[in-house]
Amino acid sequence: MEKFSRNQRIAAITKLLVENPSKMVNLNKFTEVFNAAKSTISEDVVIIRDIFNKLEVGNIETIAGASGGIKYVCNSSQEEKNKFAEGLCAILAEKDRIIPGNFIYMTDIMYNPEIVHKAAVILASNFNNLGVQYVVTVETKGIPLAYEVAKMLCVELIIVRRDNRVTEGPTVSINYVSGSGRRIQSMSLSRKSIKRGSKCIFVDDFMKAGGTALGIIEMLREFNSELVGIGVLVESTENKSKLLNNYISIIQFNGISENGSAILVPSNNVKK
Amino acid sequence: MEKFSRNQRIAAITKLLVENPSKMVNLNKFTEVFNAAKSTISEDVVIIRDIFNKLEVGNIETIAGASGGIKYVCNSSQEEKNKFAEGLCAILAEKDRIIPGNFIYMTDIMYNPEIVHKAAVILASNFNNLGVQYVVTVETKGIPLAYEVAKMLCVELIIVRRDNRVTEGPTVSINYVSGSGRRIQSMSLSRKSIKRGSKCIFVDDFMKAGGTALGIIEMLREFNSELVGIGVLVESTENKSKLLNNYISIIQFNGISENGSAILVPSNNVKK
Repeated sequence: MEKFSRNQRIAAITKLLVENPSKMVNLNKFTEVFNAAKSTISEDVVIIRDIFNKLEVGNIETIAGASGGIKYVCNSSQEEKNKFAEGLCAILAEKDRIIPGNFIYMTDIMYNPEIVHKAAVILASNFNNLGVQYVVTVETKGIPLAYEVAKMLCVELIIVRRDNRVTEGPTVSINYVSGSGRRIQSMSLSRKSIKRGSKCIFVDDFMKAGGTALGIIEMLREFNSELVGIGVLVESTENKSKLLNNYISIIQFNGISENGSAILVPSNNVKK
Repeated sequence: MEKFSRNQRIAAITKLLVENPSKMVNLNKFTEVFNAAKSTISEDVVIIRDIFNKLEVGNIETIAGASGGIKYVCNSSQEEKNKFAEGLCAILAEKDRIIPGNFIYMTDIMYNPEIVHKAAVILASNFNNLGVQYVVTVETKGIPLAYEVAKMLCVELIIVRRDNRVTEGPTVSINYVSGSGRRIQSMSLSRKSIKRGSKCIFVDDFMKAGGTALGIIEMLREFNSELVGIGVLVESTENKSKLLNNYISIIQFNGISENGSAILVPSNNVKK
């Protein structure tokens, strides 16, 4: 049977781990593919872990025991996080992004895989140890970000709908008051989507007063499930009466300046 | 300045390439980070490319010239593709997936990052050489898959909406006839979202007669842009009068059997 060099094994193991964040991989998988002893694979993994730690690009965790293995846990360096948040503030402060109603046009940002991936690494690195089963979002703009966070945590994504579609079977619907607009809105979710007794985090593109997040808490209660964390790309500080105070954001939106561009700064939890 | 071993460089280069599919990376980036000669980095890349090719898990392409560099292009082996399509057929044939109206419940599949990632690699590997600028989808269920395909191709995602939201500025709306249901539906897209003269592919979860895809072609025409490919996870063969015939799918849905479960087979373009 063919033998592989250490260089070859390291490239292949790195690829498999990085493509499957937070997924536990048993070392036997590698001993079979590479026809190598477990001790040899363990040495390969130590090399990968050391360079990831040195460059501050995540960690390889080892879980001992028969059902154990290794998993890649995403992270980025503090310098990278700051650079990303500052770069995003600069992009969103472009004047032509202000659209009628004093909204910021950020659809292109939310649908740009490179930006979404980096933002998801920052958010997910805050939720790695919560033991959640689902990442929840409300359609539509936050879906790619929530999907990437779910991927980083190796859990399923749940998308709460604004309507109820025939192709999802029986649904649970609730009404909630949007905290900023004071409008009554509704959201619905398929009965089949969440196992009872689950822990979830909520991920979205933008948070104003937090009314949507409160709606999610109420929705999860219908599934006997619990919200244990909230992560958003942008939080608005204009709505002083935040209905929630346990959340993380990457940047803060502080209104529109006199010259007509958005005032944005990296959030405190990013620039540690 | 610190020196890195070949093993260390290979782990770090592999990680960066795999996390940024289809993105051109200049070798100078690595010579700086690793304080190594360009020839040394080139040798590292050859090792990575060889093992990726040997294991059939994608390719590293080299583009010569001053503005050139290397990029990781995703792919999976024919064996992996078949195994994935067959596994998916088995999951979707579970009896309790049939919901009123003879729909298949596949929301959990479309929101499962591991499944979505594998499906996206299969679809994207068919579109690598089309030189597209955008991956287009219609909300909601196909968004994670379309996002992953966009990520694999290193292009932006475009989500066509069923309504028009205030936070996206001026929009273009069109009406279209759904090919299977013969219902009139509408879709809208922000004026800002697509640069004129772009090439796009359309990605969705499920295709019946192709009415939505025709709507997308019409929508893109409003932006002087062109649809050059269509990829779906599941195509229904029940609607014989397919309005389009240039598309790829991963599995085919052939109706509901007498015992009440869905009849599904891998598509021809997957089992080559």
